[in-house]
Amino acid sequence: MLDRIADKWSLLVIALLEEKTLRFGELSREIDGISKRMLTVTLRNLERDGLVRRTVYPEVPPRVEYELTSLGRTLLGTTQALVTWSEEHQEEIARAREAFETAAH
Amino acid sequence: MLDRIADKWSLLVIALLEEKTLRFGELSREIDGISKRMLTVTLRNLERDGLVRRTVYPEVPPRVEYELTSLGRTLLGTTQALVTWSEEHQEEIARAREAFETAAH
Repeated sequence: MLDRIADKWSLLVIALLEEKTLRFGELSREIDGISKRMLTVTLRNLERDGLVRRTVYPEVPPRVEYELTSLGRTLLGTTQALVTWSEEHQEEIARAREAFETAAH
Repeated sequence: MLDRIADKWSLLVIALLEEKTLRFGELSREIDGISKRMLTVTLRNLERDGLVRRTVYPEVPPRVEYELTSLGRTLLGTTQALVTWSEEHQEEIARAREAFETAAH
């Protein structure tokens, strides 16, 4: 189960949805580097795991919206902490990688 | 960078090391389902990112130990929260998956 949530795209979708309701296009624009196919798979898996709710409105064309379920919201704090941690420590890690490569490895 | 830490094996290694120093064999026994090759790659990546320190003692045979660096320890709380969350919600997610599969999808 950990491999579902320990997944970069899932974490970014959860962190982005927060308390909001978003459409596919909005999610796609907000998440750097995610392909349409990967976003479709990620949303479907999150829906399947009960973390995201998908609502289809019978309009022409149909409107589809995504939001966190109550179960999904219990993961929000930890997810945002992990996303924030990775943003805040990006430089330290880049330096560590440089040092690792130049050292006798 | 998020994809490094948003990785099941990395999270399990970090959560397991905690404040301890462990050897490869101990890590390998404690983490269900991880292959020796995957543990080697995971530890090397974590070392490269400055999250884990690898210490080799010049004995015969050489003794190799792993521990979290100070940077690694800043990730510990969030990592444990994610691991604990996934353990605590395993059944809810299994039920959601069942419902998803039986519903008209």
